[in-house]
Amino acid sequence: MTEKNYTAVLRGTAFHTPVWGEAEVLEDCLFAVDAKGEVAAVYHPHDAEYGDVLRRYEKTDIYRALAPGQYLLPGFVDLHIHAPQWTNMGKALHVPLATWLQEYTFPLERKLAEATTAREVYREIVTTTLAHGTTTAVYFGSQDTAGTLLLAEICAALGQRGACGKVVMDNPEECPPYYRDADSAAALRATREFIEAVRAIGNSCPQGAWPVITPRFVPSCTDATLAGLGELAAEYGVPIQTHIAESDWEAGYAYERFGKSDAEVLDMFGLLTKKSVVAHGTQLRDEDAALLAERGSTVAHCPLSNAFFGNGVYPVRRRFAQGVRAGLGTDVSGGYSPSLYDNIRQAVVVSRMLEDGVDARRPAAERGVPESRIDYRHALYMATTAGGEALGSKLGLFRPVYAFDAQLIDTRVPHSDIHIYSGDTPEDVLQKILFLANRANLTALWVQGREVLHGTGGRHE
Amino acid sequence: MTEKNYTAVLRGTAFHTPVWGEAEVLEDCLFAVDAKGEVAAVYHPHDAEYGDVLRRYEKTDIYRALAPGQYLLPGFVDLHIHAPQWTNMGKALHVPLATWLQEYTFPLERKLAEATTAREVYREIVTTTLAHGTTTAVYFGSQDTAGTLLLAEICAALGQRGACGKVVMDNPEECPPYYRDADSAAALRATREFIEAVRAIGNSCPQGAWPVITPRFVPSCTDATLAGLGELAAEYGVPIQTHIAESDWEAGYAYERFGKSDAEVLDMFGLLTKKSVVAHGTQLRDEDAALLAERGSTVAHCPLSNAFFGNGVYPVRRRFAQGVRAGLGTDVSGGYSPSLYDNIRQAVVVSRMLEDGVDARRPAAERGVPESRIDYRHALYMATTAGGEALGSKLGLFRPVYAFDAQLIDTRVPHSDIHIYSGDTPEDVLQKILFLANRANLTALWVQGREVLHGTGGRHE
Repeated sequence: MTEKNYTAVLRGTAFHTPVWGEAEVLEDCLFAVDAKGEVAAVYHPHDAEYGDVLRRYEKTDIYRALAPGQYLLPGFVDLHIHAPQWTNMGKALHVPLATWLQEYTFPLERKLAEATTAREVYREIVTTTLAHGTTTAVYFGSQDTAGTLLLAEICAALGQRGACGKVVMDNPEECPPYYRDADSAAALRATREFIEAVRAIGNSCPQGAWPVITPRFVPSCTDATLAGLGELAAEYGVPIQTHIAESDWEAGYAYERFGKSDAEVLDMFGLLTKKSVVAHGTQLRDEDAALLAERGSTVAHCPLSNAFFGNGVYPVRRRFAQGVRAGLGTDVSGGYSPSLYDNIRQAVVVSRMLEDGVDARRPAAERGVPESRIDYRHALYMATTAGGEALGSKLGLFRPVYAFDAQLIDTRVPHSDIHIYSGDTPEDVLQKILFLANRANLTALWVQGREVLHGTGGRHE
Repeated sequence: MTEKNYTAVLRGTAFHTPVWGEAEVLEDCLFAVDAKGEVAAVYHPHDAEYGDVLRRYEKTDIYRALAPGQYLLPGFVDLHIHAPQWTNMGKALHVPLATWLQEYTFPLERKLAEATTAREVYREIVTTTLAHGTTTAVYFGSQDTAGTLLLAEICAALGQRGACGKVVMDNPEECPPYYRDADSAAALRATREFIEAVRAIGNSCPQGAWPVITPRFVPSCTDATLAGLGELAAEYGVPIQTHIAESDWEAGYAYERFGKSDAEVLDMFGLLTKKSVVAHGTQLRDEDAALLAERGSTVAHCPLSNAFFGNGVYPVRRRFAQGVRAGLGTDVSGGYSPSLYDNIRQAVVVSRMLEDGVDARRPAAERGVPESRIDYRHALYMATTAGGEALGSKLGLFRPVYAFDAQLIDTRVPHSDIHIYSGDTPEDVLQKILFLANRANLTALWVQGREVLHGTGGRHE
């Protein structure tokens, strides 16, 4: 055989989802990684070269064979998470939305302009999400440019692929005076500087760091700012993130101010592109979804958060049929969990609740929305493959030229709830992992071919 | 001070819920336990005797002060869990109900008549649920009497308070020939023997073991058996467990066979008592709930399982207002998680989804059921206080004569997702624990005053 120059070769069983609704088991394969941190090749046991590659590498120190009970999963892509809301995670979910925003969330995000606080908090969120298998995260930072740059630097340093946005919010009618951009010009200038600075950070680390244009949502921005951000997106070709039709209130606001839907407003300002990630979308109409499909934008489905703030379930299966891609987001701290596993589970659960309905006083036939259910395969696809496509990047699959972003799940560690029995098929194992894994089961994590989890429990105290 | 003869004195901060919807913080208290394993006294820092008790015990080896970041919670009561379905936990949730029952569940439960399999499986479920804080569990065993007795023995030996039932299912029209009681007389005889045998087991351990009369559900039993089990319940005064109006199918079945609702049928046979635990109840009508309230029966609310099999959300807040108590159940393996923490979270989540509705195509005002939401306080009440009341026992509160069943939650362990900050109030801490604790956080567990968690991760391999 010819010289391959692999930098790592792993042998074991992996799961991934190349197709919506289907899971592929890569049983006892060899996964070869190259110097760029990409998958160079996947050899199946029946492949002619399998034996040669195995013999060539199995005695080298770049070779690793998974132990019984260990499995590989692609790293997860969290398409929606608010880094400065970290310290509120798990609290204040019982208060009304206005209280949540004005008394809990805005003051907290404001505090993250203090560098010491920001450094500690951002290290914790990056460390914790890595410990839950999130290899790529699309972060809302705060309104503060310097603080959000710190977030991008911390992602770069800790090995997570961070797509970060300085949050733009300059509409004095919707944003508190202590927490907003001074005016449209200042907001746009800051965004431009932020893009340039994050690009430089990205060049400094193998997994990259990406700037994201981030209008908080339509209500928080003036017209001039929405228009200017659309122009910046066209100029730089970078991703955009915002919220879309998250709640009855947000959906109604766009009509009141513009006489159009939230989606139509974003599109009018050039903010729906094939690199746009729009969070929630529970209140999108079918015609809004058709617009998203036409533009190639991706919805960040956040099922846990939506139970508290979404006023409905995002109908992920119907939207995929319309051509609208969706990935998954934790939406910390509107969602109480930093784990995409929890959101994979919840995505399945809420799809069943949408299908069957919730109010048993209605007749069964009028209670829910038939054919809404998804299963663990769709949910894994959203957490991996769809997240990569949303960002226009080769992420989420064990295939050549895809980044080698991978989780090693060990089902036999202490604190494991995953119990595998002799009758379990590989598909059963995947189901048990997706429904029952906790962070103790994640014993190694690779981003762009590099191992990035170190120390017990991945926790810095 | 007089001699107290305490067997343990703990100092620290605890949370509990004496009242539906309210949480009480017992800050820096002394919890004194007596030789019966009951709470003998709770001393608050402002109590006159606090200093005396502290001085008397703090140098003894029965004293333990919680470290910073550690908190006490009452042990949880799981009101509904199927022990022989353990090995299916986390799988087959995407198959239709008929397939789930006939191809996955009944054959699996049948296998648990083999003592070796049963011993291994039952040790795992008891060990794992203890590791998640379940100090009392109301178990469906299998149809096999000997196997279910083994379950009761294992609970007794491992220190969990097990309320176990040999499952009765003798209706040939609904039960497969390989897995049912031979006839009504055999089912009733087996139940009587089972009750006597479990009572003997209960006398052998401090926490007790309780027999539970367990008709699987109305469809699985003949009339003679339902009537006979009602008579046994009256004769022995023991608890009853069954399923009630779990799904559209089950609710409809009762009308077809009896021309009455599922609740009315159970009542007709004497199976709704103040010691009855009826699982699910998603399809109960208001008049059925009124009947439950009158009888003093308790609903085991299983929010995770119901998403898959319930065809609706059990309206826990409306039912409490009607006087119907509800506790929580994991319903393994209809529910994929062995943890009541997961079900506490899901109880909150589904209450919000019931309130707001799921199908955004309906106008907001017609989408959900107003005033359905509960919060973390209601959910904790269900997992503790209500579970104890369901069984007519003093469980779930840190109060004199209540069993000292307690969880020690350490927020600072490796793998912890609980991050406490200086601004967090005790109520915030409780919210973070309930939404974010995982089994690594549970570092000690007491049942009836005895510590019962040993070894790393509480796992036997």
